[in-house]
Amino acid sequence: MSRDLSALFDPASVAVVGASDDPAKWGNWLARGALAGRSRRTVHLVNRRAGTVLGEKAYTSLAQIGAPVELVVVAVPAAAFASAVHEALEAGARAIVGISAGLGEAGEDGARLQRELQADVRAADAVLLGPNCLGVMDSAAELHLVSNPMPAGRVALLSQSGNLSLELGRMLQWHGHGFSRFASLGNQADLDVADLLVACAEHKGTDAIAVYCEDFRDGRRFVAAARRAGETGKPVVLLTVGSSEASRRGARSHTGSLVSGSSVVDAACAAGGVLRVATPAQLADLLAALLSGVRPDGHAGRRLAVLSDGGGHASIAADVAEVAGLRVPELSSAVMAELAAELPPTAATANPIDVAGGGEQDITCFSRVTRGLLGSGEVDAVLLTGYFGGYGEYSPELAEREVEVADALARAAREAGRPLVVHSMYPDTPAAAALRSGRVPVYRTVEAAVGALARVMAAPPAVPAPLPIPVPAEPVSEDDYWSSRALLAEAGVPFPAAVLVYDEAGLTAAPGFPCVLKAVGLLHKSDAGGVSLGIPDAASLTAAYRDLQDRLGPLPCTVEQMADVSGGVELIAGVRRDPRFGPVAMVGLGGVYTEILADVACALAPLRADEAERLLAGLRGAALLRGARGRTPVDVAAAARVIAAITELAAAHPEIAELEVNPLLVTPRGALALDARIVLS
Amino acid sequence: MSRDLSALFDPASVAVVGASDDPAKWGNWLARGALAGRSRRTVHLVNRRAGTVLGEKAYTSLAQIGAPVELVVVAVPAAAFASAVHEALEAGARAIVGISAGLGEAGEDGARLQRELQADVRAADAVLLGPNCLGVMDSAAELHLVSNPMPAGRVALLSQSGNLSLELGRMLQWHGHGFSRFASLGNQADLDVADLLVACAEHKGTDAIAVYCEDFRDGRRFVAAARRAGETGKPVVLLTVGSSEASRRGARSHTGSLVSGSSVVDAACAAGGVLRVATPAQLADLLAALLSGVRPDGHAGRRLAVLSDGGGHASIAADVAEVAGLRVPELSSAVMAELAAELPPTAATANPIDVAGGGEQDITCFSRVTRGLLGSGEVDAVLLTGYFGGYGEYSPELAEREVEVADALARAAREAGRPLVVHSMYPDTPAAAALRSGRVPVYRTVEAAVGALARVMAAPPAVPAPLPIPVPAEPVSEDDYWSSRALLAEAGVPFPAAVLVYDEAGLTAAPGFPCVLKAVGLLHKSDAGGVSLGIPDAASLTAAYRDLQDRLGPLPCTVEQMADVSGGVELIAGVRRDPRFGPVAMVGLGGVYTEILADVACALAPLRADEAERLLAGLRGAALLRGARGRTPVDVAAAARVIAAITELAAAHPEIAELEVNPLLVTPRGALALDARIVLS
Repeated sequence: MSRDLSALFDPASVAVVGASDDPAKWGNWLARGALAGRSRRTVHLVNRRAGTVLGEKAYTSLAQIGAPVELVVVAVPAAAFASAVHEALEAGARAIVGISAGLGEAGEDGARLQRELQADVRAADAVLLGPNCLGVMDSAAELHLVSNPMPAGRVALLSQSGNLSLELGRMLQWHGHGFSRFASLGNQADLDVADLLVACAEHKGTDAIAVYCEDFRDGRRFVAAARRAGETGKPVVLLTVGSSEASRRGARSHTGSLVSGSSVVDAACAAGGVLRVATPAQLADLLAALLSGVRPDGHAGRRLAVLSDGGGHASIAADVAEVAGLRVPELSSAVMAELAAELPPTAATANPIDVAGGGEQDITCFSRVTRGLLGSGEVDAVLLTGYFGGYGEYSPELAEREVEVADALARAAREAGRPLVVHSMYPDTPAAAALRSGRVPVYRTVEAAVGALARVMAAPPAVPAPLPIPVPAEPVSEDDYWSSRALLAEAGVPFPAAVLVYDEAGLTAAPGFPCVLKAVGLLHKSDAGGVSLGIPDAASLTAAYRDLQDRLGPLPCTVEQMADVSGGVELIAGVRRDPRFGPVAMVGLGGVYTEILADVACALAPLRADEAERLLAGLRGAALLRGARGRTPVDVAAAARVIAAITELAAAHPEIAELEVNPLLVTPRGALALDARIVLS
Repeated sequence: MSRDLSALFDPASVAVVGASDDPAKWGNWLARGALAGRSRRTVHLVNRRAGTVLGEKAYTSLAQIGAPVELVVVAVPAAAFASAVHEALEAGARAIVGISAGLGEAGEDGARLQRELQADVRAADAVLLGPNCLGVMDSAAELHLVSNPMPAGRVALLSQSGNLSLELGRMLQWHGHGFSRFASLGNQADLDVADLLVACAEHKGTDAIAVYCEDFRDGRRFVAAARRAGETGKPVVLLTVGSSEASRRGARSHTGSLVSGSSVVDAACAAGGVLRVATPAQLADLLAALLSGVRPDGHAGRRLAVLSDGGGHASIAADVAEVAGLRVPELSSAVMAELAAELPPTAATANPIDVAGGGEQDITCFSRVTRGLLGSGEVDAVLLTGYFGGYGEYSPELAEREVEVADALARAAREAGRPLVVHSMYPDTPAAAALRSGRVPVYRTVEAAVGALARVMAAPPAVPAPLPIPVPAEPVSEDDYWSSRALLAEAGVPFPAAVLVYDEAGLTAAPGFPCVLKAVGLLHKSDAGGVSLGIPDAASLTAAYRDLQDRLGPLPCTVEQMADVSGGVELIAGVRRDPRFGPVAMVGLGGVYTEILADVACALAPLRADEAERLLAGLRGAALLRGARGRTPVDVAAAARVIAAITELAAAHPEIAELEVNPLLVTPRGALALDARIVLS
């Protein structure tokens, strides 16, 4: 899936079409940015009218340049965009950046034009970024085709928002970091987020990839690209929208994006090994922790030591850490004795550790204690919280010593190979800067420090390769209950024995008693009174049948064996088709659990049985399946096999918009589908 | 409950005992602080040895001063503390501040001494702050008996941590706020957090009260004091610890505190109308919002307009707001048309509102649109998020205009009487400062802005006066099942008919069939096999009785009528005694809901029936009670009356450490206790 983007990020020559002398125009900012990279590449400015721009010769057209141009940036009104792209291709462009807005995001005409241009660009073996994008940047390549300066660093940013990118840049810069590359995604007419993700995964100057995306286009390609980045050791952190109807409304208006639901995006992140965040600050804070270079071991736990000067800071941090899923374990008496030897007698050493004024007495206690903790084997990381960073305010001597201690802290973390993060009340002092230079992330608030650390320390979930979507099977065209049941049964989903009856005579074929009578062809048959349960004998069945026909008929019915639900738990299993990410499986506890507690989990379909089992185990009420309150555990493996079969069936039938088995009864004796529903698209 | 603290916060004279020339000592910082208030009061320095301190005459004892001293600050070693307090009382002190550490927090000897000193202080009609405290401050009274300078403002801070107070001070100062008063609680030997809360509620210079407390001492007095503050219109915001075992460990070590569980503190906050936060940043951020002076109307909803320049910021903010419980509703076409008239054609006006570059074209669009939104009647508040604050970076002219717009924004919020909060990527610019001067809170991150706003906009919960704890009843001494049942039944808790039997002959008195047989005197009778359900007839009862006696006996048993559980829901209701807050009621959904989903709610006991009903309605699974999935609603009122009776009984019996009815069956026909357990302390 890799496309050659060298002409986009490090072209030998660049032309700015629409270059301008007007400092309020994109064409001006881009021309200045392009000229700044002149020592590295040829730069041409193109303006239909002007003879010069920014004091440089300006061509009236690309053709006039008379030499091939690798990268062409187009900043002209929408009406002139298509011809500019064609001229660029004629001029031999390998890459085009479309700044122009008012195209695909503005309506169907623009979208059609984009599709045509994509075809033309691909036919010429070139690439197009945008249109409606804000440009491209590569710090090492001195390529700055963006409107604002952005700090240089090791993070590649792919973004569908300019101002969010600027905010992230400011935050990263505060953390001592910046961007290796920036690509504004715009309308993704040709290059999409997946293409750019792969290019950044393969980029030597990039250590981590940040994505702000509203529309994932081909979501499965995005997942594959994220997995590739993960394989190269580069974490992918995603900021996206769509958890509220309001943001979906906003995104449609902003980029014309088709926004997927939040649980679908979560499922994609799980499949791609992507870390998802909710705000720019979370994104910057997490990147700062990831870029510290100290990652917990694969087997690392979540045991945290909290170190502070002051019991209040120590206890608050411990609470915040435990709420975030970290553990602040009591240390052994041996480790406590070692720490006590470094600290005043009033210090608390059990964890959280309060040096209780020890910092004022001898500021080196922080580095000594941190080294001891990181080497103790009893914690996986250290959080230093509170006053450190501020001792230097007392005197220049103490300021100097505090910086030395900051250096020693950074060394201790590096040598131990375990994370040290710092929350400082004084996050802008020389000591805080020294920590950052030593790759120790420093945060303004304890919740920011803990939030980032908790994400870094979370055992990276195993990311099994998503199963490929199967080759489409012969499409189905019936979605009544009997047909749905038959389709699922054929796919290996077990149902109780049943017969379809059209008249009273058919009732003699009932598969035994007690039995269930269901009307076929009603959308919500339970709610409509189209289901009778626990019919004990033939006479009752006849009565129930007549009653049903009187009320709702004439309707065909099924007569089904009544399942033995003793010791069982009702599950729900289904698949819905997302326009971006394709079939998405949903499993949950059924009945009241689904309706009242919304205890469900999602994953990209199709699922292997082991994946289905892992999803079930992650439900809040999973203890019910394991045999809570002295009950016999149910056959989760059988349920998982059925769920896998359901997801595979749905994935093989793109014409199925929704497929649901509810309830899927799982007992100690196995799993059985008691009802099924298919919605064709 | 109000004590006169005028001598503590604004004394006519102050003496510092332990005043020192050594700049590393408390006695030095305090002496300098005291001298700074000299234009307002007489200041005496006392040092056993020195003739002068800080160039001022120093007395060798308080007695030597020869005149009464209203406030005495004691900063001497622990061993000299008691005699210093006595000397102070002899010198006529009305208030004493005990800086000295190593007393109650250091062990039982210190605690005993503190109790003796408290009695002496109270006998002299004086007050004692501390010991082990960091001093006291009153900005308007120019009283600065603290180690560090603290910003002046309208927040009273009562704190058990010095460094947390400094951090909060820095954060508040950044928000343009500061402290009216500061009192370090220390060991609360005499004055406790409740005393100080009342004094600050009555203080004219205070608009809001911030509390950091680890040990609430008499928790019910704290609740009453918070209610009094609420009645004066001063919000109380609480930061505390204890949600993790680690923080309880830390607090014990820090201040020797007895820390209550987090759900108990939440119950106390609900009863006292206290806003609880988890970190210093949340505390400062919420105070900034509360001090804006613009509170939503009593009937205000949670409808928020999000306004931004940039679709990314708009959508992210909308998502964050909805997760925080706010709503970002689509605006009517009439309002949208009004907004559209102020904005470029590409702007999004449905909410979130993206001015789409409108800020660059005409920066006054922000104030015009905000005014329109606040006056629309369709939203209760406005969040301006993203770039605003940064336009001034373009040019000095734009900087000036941006400040004018900031002023106009503040005016619009004031005139509309509705909250406007701002998240700015550029929170330290002149425009951001202008917003703050106009009492518009500005935040560095969108999550901070939304978090504070969501708390301010949450409809203030009705805070009914907690019922007084009843006069203790005749204590009970038996806690076996039969006695517990009898005690509860007498209190009005309905149980199924039952008899106590000691032998087979007694079985003839069985109250009907089917029945239940239970062993009396087993701690966990169900788990031990001491309960048989659904016994259909006399012969089966005899068999079950023999079997039980064979396995576990000899044991007395109860024979109880089997309850009709059809259409019912199992609840759990109990009361536990917290050492600080007294009896605390807990109600929840029983069975798997309690054990697996921990769906419970707490409140201070005793509860009125209407309060119990409100607690039940707040459970996550409350829909089950209202008749989910077409079932008949259960008799919640009956359950609430039983819960009220249970809580009243427990509150009247301080010797009962725990009381639990589980299950409390509630059906459409009423409520019935099916089992009960009492634990005596």
